[in-house]
Amino acid sequence: MNITQPLHKALRECPDALAIVDGERRQNWRHLVSRIGSLAGGLQSLSMQHGDRVGMLARNSDHYIEYLYGVIWGGGVVNPVNIRWSAREIAYSLDDSDTRILLIDDTFLELLPAIREHSVALETIVFVGPGKAPEGTIDFEQLISTSAEVPDANRHGDDLAAILYTGGTTGQPKGVMLSHNNCYLGSIGASLGAPRPPRQAGLHAAPFFHVAGMQSMFGLSIRLGTHVVLTGFEPALVLRAIEEHGISEIFLVPTMLRMLLDHPDFGVRNLSSLESVRYGASPMDISLLERAMNELPGVDFSQAYGMTELAPTVAVLPPYYHTEEGRKAGKLRSAGIPTPVAEIRIVDPMDKELPNNTVGEIAVRGPMVMQGYWNKPEQTAEALRGGWMHTGDAGYMDDDGFLYVVDRIKDMVVTGGENVYSAEVENAILKLPQVELCAVFGVPDERWGERVHAAIKLRPGSELSEQQVTDHCKEHIASYKCPRSIEFVDEMPMSSAGKLLKFKMREPYWENQDRRVG
Amino acid sequence: MNITQPLHKALRECPDALAIVDGERRQNWRHLVSRIGSLAGGLQSLSMQHGDRVGMLARNSDHYIEYLYGVIWGGGVVNPVNIRWSAREIAYSLDDSDTRILLIDDTFLELLPAIREHSVALETIVFVGPGKAPEGTIDFEQLISTSAEVPDANRHGDDLAAILYTGGTTGQPKGVMLSHNNCYLGSIGASLGAPRPPRQAGLHAAPFFHVAGMQSMFGLSIRLGTHVVLTGFEPALVLRAIEEHGISEIFLVPTMLRMLLDHPDFGVRNLSSLESVRYGASPMDISLLERAMNELPGVDFSQAYGMTELAPTVAVLPPYYHTEEGRKAGKLRSAGIPTPVAEIRIVDPMDKELPNNTVGEIAVRGPMVMQGYWNKPEQTAEALRGGWMHTGDAGYMDDDGFLYVVDRIKDMVVTGGENVYSAEVENAILKLPQVELCAVFGVPDERWGERVHAAIKLRPGSELSEQQVTDHCKEHIASYKCPRSIEFVDEMPMSSAGKLLKFKMREPYWENQDRRVG
Repeated sequence: MNITQPLHKALRECPDALAIVDGERRQNWRHLVSRIGSLAGGLQSLSMQHGDRVGMLARNSDHYIEYLYGVIWGGGVVNPVNIRWSAREIAYSLDDSDTRILLIDDTFLELLPAIREHSVALETIVFVGPGKAPEGTIDFEQLISTSAEVPDANRHGDDLAAILYTGGTTGQPKGVMLSHNNCYLGSIGASLGAPRPPRQAGLHAAPFFHVAGMQSMFGLSIRLGTHVVLTGFEPALVLRAIEEHGISEIFLVPTMLRMLLDHPDFGVRNLSSLESVRYGASPMDISLLERAMNELPGVDFSQAYGMTELAPTVAVLPPYYHTEEGRKAGKLRSAGIPTPVAEIRIVDPMDKELPNNTVGEIAVRGPMVMQGYWNKPEQTAEALRGGWMHTGDAGYMDDDGFLYVVDRIKDMVVTGGENVYSAEVENAILKLPQVELCAVFGVPDERWGERVHAAIKLRPGSELSEQQVTDHCKEHIASYKCPRSIEFVDEMPMSSAGKLLKFKMREPYWENQDRRVG
Repeated sequence: MNITQPLHKALRECPDALAIVDGERRQNWRHLVSRIGSLAGGLQSLSMQHGDRVGMLARNSDHYIEYLYGVIWGGGVVNPVNIRWSAREIAYSLDDSDTRILLIDDTFLELLPAIREHSVALETIVFVGPGKAPEGTIDFEQLISTSAEVPDANRHGDDLAAILYTGGTTGQPKGVMLSHNNCYLGSIGASLGAPRPPRQAGLHAAPFFHVAGMQSMFGLSIRLGTHVVLTGFEPALVLRAIEEHGISEIFLVPTMLRMLLDHPDFGVRNLSSLESVRYGASPMDISLLERAMNELPGVDFSQAYGMTELAPTVAVLPPYYHTEEGRKAGKLRSAGIPTPVAEIRIVDPMDKELPNNTVGEIAVRGPMVMQGYWNKPEQTAEALRGGWMHTGDAGYMDDDGFLYVVDRIKDMVVTGGENVYSAEVENAILKLPQVELCAVFGVPDERWGERVHAAIKLRPGSELSEQQVTDHCKEHIASYKCPRSIEFVDEMPMSSAGKLLKFKMREPYWENQDRRVG
């Protein structure tokens, strides 16, 4: 399968239907595909050859979608750049993947001199307006308007389509190589887990550089839906867009969902068009989910579990288990069942498959598993050993085949010889109504090797003592799992996808210490 | 993708869930996969090598599912035999595909001597009970119980999985070669067109030797649903099974749907578990469909369009267009929109793509398109020219990308230089409430070359004159399209899939005449 196939279908099946809405700019499929063909031609004239990487550093826009398809249509490979990264990190990812062409929007223009300084590979800059293209850059609109449309390179299903750099939560950037088949069948798997009708309007709230945003986009195209694009996640604008464009479906990370529910416009806007809310990318607080289900009755909620290396979704908790009747099955805390195209198993460190209800590493097989890490044959071989992607996530399967994600394997705290999974402790602490966010990790301890440490952010106006937390935990979990030290913080470092960056909180404690090898 | 993948998933995700119900016999997935592994081992001991064809001539049963998976698990290729064929036709298909092993059930045992007589290839017969295996045959149960389980041959996605002989309606049997990818992605495409939740119970009413029955089975397995199997289509038993097993989904050809609605048990049985009725394989009478929708409120109806060469579904009319609101769009007569994995275009005889609303030949591209016709390189090249499967069906696309199937290209009547599509005339005649079935085709005519001829079967107790039919037609269609001769018949020849075998009705008229080359 080629990820450009929906464009050919759209030209035949609904060329005049709305493809993208970005503010005042609206395009039907005919117009969009024409621009994609010209952009592909323009990039080829800038010496993009088949398989060459092309980066984009920009906030979400219609042009981002044009970039993703334009590069691939022209035979290239997209390398969407993490917009939270420093110039040095960006330069690393460009050089590592030998990305010589970079598209950049006005928001990130100020980073350009520093990126140029640190990058060896970078040769050509395409400026994506608004405004005049700065000296030394090529104007995006001019590139499209002066380039002839070229035919789809129509690369093979096993050819590379995207390199996505991950490692934001572990500190080691790796280029995940996704083929056309990976992207196509990953999207298909997600669709089958929580099916949606064709040709509806979807709102993109997650950034396109993130695999969840990119794959939501590809998935909506496969159903020939209308893409409604916002620059970034802004609750008031999201709520307005749902009303204005009759949005049927949206993907949200839990933090975004909370921000929508908390916003004063939530009760004001007409959200009746909304039919489907998928959530994922970080653990969901059940009380938040229950609140969302109550305040959005009739909306299908579904959870997606995955990671960049899995393009990304491999398990889905279908809407049924969110309904009043389905909730009786008690699966709301699970990450769902494997999608039809994914096989999931739980293994011990020797790759031996573990019985049900036993925590081990989650391993995945199927057509969505990445081709490997760019230029990292050893880490690739390690991650994909035996033909299974080893996720680094700890989890178990229950007797009904539902997957439960317990924690990152590497976040496990080993204290006095006992394994403590951070998520278990975090879930206990989050039961306290005063707690808004919580991160549990191991810190060095002379007596126990590591001790369980909790960082807690309280809700505005709430109060809580260390003792209250400890007493509460002892009621819910074994004593050795309870935090032995607690800090209250005003803010927590978050990734752009709304994931807690635990390693940043852990780091100060481990400076000048031997790190555990996870 | 390998079509055995759901079996591996089932072993992990729901080994104890019910996999098959056939009368008193029930198996969970663990048991089923174990038998499949042993059957594969047994067939290998009978010298089945990778890629070898193995036939089955039997009515539907749990053993048929074991056969389909057992052969493929062992690395072989299934060749499900058309149960309506004569011994000579069966022998032809076995010899053409060099099928040396045949499984046969008690129903067809009486055909065996004649098949043996006509077939050169056939070597080994496996008897699928009930009863004692006749001399010279191997007992199916004994083969399974005495053979060790072998591991899945786990063949490549592009390896052959099935050869299905078609040509029942045109008289020229051809072996359609379907790969693992064809079978897997054909099923996935159909699922995406009218999605169903996982793990529900489906009733198999269509015969497994037919592509619709086989792919419904593979598709339900992909969702890890429970297969409820009946020997054949018997309305009373189907209605009972729906009630007894809480059936959620069923595939029916229009004739079957009519028989269910007409049956006295229809109003008696509790059919409230039924959520989805897919129909297809032959044109649907709209009044029948409307009746079904009224009598089964709350059931999702969807239509599937396809053919054996397309594994088989490439377009689906989603449930929405059957609802009261959706019907306002007026798409009920269309065959639906292309599934996400299928590209459909309409071409003229020179393979030039035609504009919307223009009738031409329906051509299809995608991962479900067959590998070709067995041993027929020229017919394969012709059918697949330019990378598109030429269906031989006439149709058009409307401005919304909905496909309308007008007729088999070859059924078109050319009368006095005008093209008349049979389906248009049939649709007009079927508006008469007295008419149960109708077939329109061309017969030789001295003046017009061909003339439009209608064969009509009336509903029991109804009366109708030729003049009444002609008068009615003139009200609805152009005069030159109206039948110039009409015959009333008591019965019409039907294929096992419920398709009218028009060529059998046409044949007597064309004996000793030059045939049109379609």
